[in-house]
Amino acid sequence: MGRRRFITLEGGEGAGKSTQIRLLAQRLSEAGHRVVTTREPGGAPGAEAIRELLVTGETGRWAPKTEALLHFAAREEHLAWTVRPALERGDWVISDRFVDSTMAYQGVAQKLGAEFINELKALVVGDDMPALTLILDLAPETGLARAGRRAGGEDRYERMDKAFHRTLRQAFLDIAKNDPQRCVVIDAEKDEAAVAEAIWTAVRGHLDPDRH
Amino acid sequence: MGRRRFITLEGGEGAGKSTQIRLLAQRLSEAGHRVVTTREPGGAPGAEAIRELLVTGETGRWAPKTEALLHFAAREEHLAWTVRPALERGDWVISDRFVDSTMAYQGVAQKLGAEFINELKALVVGDDMPALTLILDLAPETGLARAGRRAGGEDRYERMDKAFHRTLRQAFLDIAKNDPQRCVVIDAEKDEAAVAEAIWTAVRGHLDPDRH
Repeated sequence: MGRRRFITLEGGEGAGKSTQIRLLAQRLSEAGHRVVTTREPGGAPGAEAIRELLVTGETGRWAPKTEALLHFAAREEHLAWTVRPALERGDWVISDRFVDSTMAYQGVAQKLGAEFINELKALVVGDDMPALTLILDLAPETGLARAGRRAGGEDRYERMDKAFHRTLRQAFLDIAKNDPQRCVVIDAEKDEAAVAEAIWTAVRGHLDPDRH
Repeated sequence: MGRRRFITLEGGEGAGKSTQIRLLAQRLSEAGHRVVTTREPGGAPGAEAIRELLVTGETGRWAPKTEALLHFAAREEHLAWTVRPALERGDWVISDRFVDSTMAYQGVAQKLGAEFINELKALVVGDDMPALTLILDLAPETGLARAGRRAGGEDRYERMDKAFHRTLRQAFLDIAKNDPQRCVVIDAEKDEAAVAEAIWTAVRGHLDPDRH
């Protein structure tokens, strides 16, 4: 089932997740909901310290298992200090990336396997899954070109090779296919306003299940 | 069974582990063995970066699960870059702390439970357990007084309260009791030379099993 007020956005680099989260949070606020926007890896002070280890430095810096463990360590901080308290207050939480990213990046693209990730997911996330996940899908070439225009040194994943990013895209689509109750694939090749509309349609359906 | 040439030293703060590892490495080298000495958390470049997060800062800095996950992330780096390559070369490896510390500190003293630690142990350590673990046992008061004389800011665990350190001591003794094939308890209240002798007796028995 997952937590009804917990929404995650997933997808490769440069899919426009942070812009869309800002727009979605505005619309939810305007509809009278209290919204916390957050991101992974990060979203809590300790988790941001772990993020620093993950998103900077050489692409081959970590053994794949280490990388997955660091993501789950950051995730536990994020859940403990940010996500669970907000949900308990009755707020909505929108997170830029969550456990599906670890499955796609470390489980599939870095070849760690679904079982390793699922065991960690059971230990750390448990029942605190989002009820709605929006998977922003676009060609890796488009995404990386967009991501390349950003400033800052947080580009360790962006520097991984083209084949990596193609595998990643397929991994996210497979996740959506295997969990259609939770996941909605959004065509992120479209312009910002069109993507925002598609996201709002998915969220509105989720807000008022009786509309269906 | 564990890896025959992999030895770990465990115990609370100030038990004299690093001194004893130096003395043991000398004796093994003199006996013609190649020896790598290492430590946890740490023992590889990435693992040392994770160590920094664990041993500094406020005592309540991390959620207990995060702390265990960070220890296992550092451990995976340590195994991948240091321990496994050394064992594959045929060297001996002596590590200052290993998985028993995570069981004692996070599993027992920080109340995470044995099951959580054992699941991570299965995912990360697998068959790469030491064949011999020397548990240096002493009263927390003695240990903390010794540890307090050390320089540097790596004292996050030392600053945890007295009850924590008493629980820790009992946790290590219970680990030894539950795994007598692998663990030898060494009385670390004795002077340096006497402790070194007790350790050497245990290791000599392990080197030449036919002596028994």
